[in-house]
Amino acid sequence: MQTWDAIRARRNVRTFTDQPIEPADLDRILEAGWRAPSAKNRQAWDFVVVTDRDQLAELATVWQGARFIPGSRATIVLTVPDPQEQRFVAIDRYDLGQATMAMMIAATDLGIGSGHASIHDQEALRRIIGMPEGHSGVALIGLGYPADRPLGPPVKLSRRPFDEVVHRGKW
Amino acid sequence: MQTWDAIRARRNVRTFTDQPIEPADLDRILEAGWRAPSAKNRQAWDFVVVTDRDQLAELATVWQGARFIPGSRATIVLTVPDPQEQRFVAIDRYDLGQATMAMMIAATDLGIGSGHASIHDQEALRRIIGMPEGHSGVALIGLGYPADRPLGPPVKLSRRPFDEVVHRGKW
Repeated sequence: MQTWDAIRARRNVRTFTDQPIEPADLDRILEAGWRAPSAKNRQAWDFVVVTDRDQLAELATVWQGARFIPGSRATIVLTVPDPQEQRFVAIDRYDLGQATMAMMIAATDLGIGSGHASIHDQEALRRIIGMPEGHSGVALIGLGYPADRPLGPPVKLSRRPFDEVVHRGKW
Repeated sequence: MQTWDAIRARRNVRTFTDQPIEPADLDRILEAGWRAPSAKNRQAWDFVVVTDRDQLAELATVWQGARFIPGSRATIVLTVPDPQEQRFVAIDRYDLGQATMAMMIAATDLGIGSGHASIHDQEALRRIIGMPEGHSGVALIGLGYPADRPLGPPVKLSRRPFDEVVHRGKW
């Protein structure tokens, strides 16, 4: 898919068909995140990719917004090491956002839908994916082929007016 | 450019040619950010796009890492409203990271290079772009055509080994 088409075709997808994701496609999505830039190239992240049905079912317990995760064909858990300084909380989240978007655009390009979920129960997550102490989960990215309609045409999104968000020269 | 090529061609660019960025291209880059997803669709962001040479020169003063900004053909200032609750600091930064990456991939697709700078002197920024109280600058994204070599071939990046970052099933 052309880049501009993929960017405009991305939308939140949380219902998926049974079609599995090819391992090479999943690796490409992960590589997109791995390539993302980060402040001073910190790369303060680990990505845990889950495809096992039982594990995906368990991941639904980490937050009410994660109930769609068992229906995903794969879920990427984004994790961050505990910050050594308070300022890294914001810095590292920004970088994880960059990695997330790269993965979602790469997924869209392959016709694969993606949707975020937040994580609240860190201890449950720790148990489910074997995450060591000193790390926390930031977000789940559920992946799969969309059950409603294929990705493709530019999506009309609910957004603040463009000219309200974008200021030219001066605010 | 194909999406996967654009994702792999993105690299930090901080030296630019004199070639201006067409207004329609700049708007496309901004639209990519405007389209980015955010927690509960908060869209807790404003983008100030600066193309005036004097203003770009002034932006160099907001942080030592912003010294390349006067050489950019355009710079997008990402700003965030002050958080109503502490937890929004991390949430909103993650979302700004998503918007950033969408803009950088959209820029790469157009052959336009991009590089981040951090912002420390918020009062200088406020004066330069007329940012109201209750908002802070998060990052500058300098944009322009790369002075060194065109964007295109997949970039070899300095990254932690892929298999160290990516865990399969369990950490």
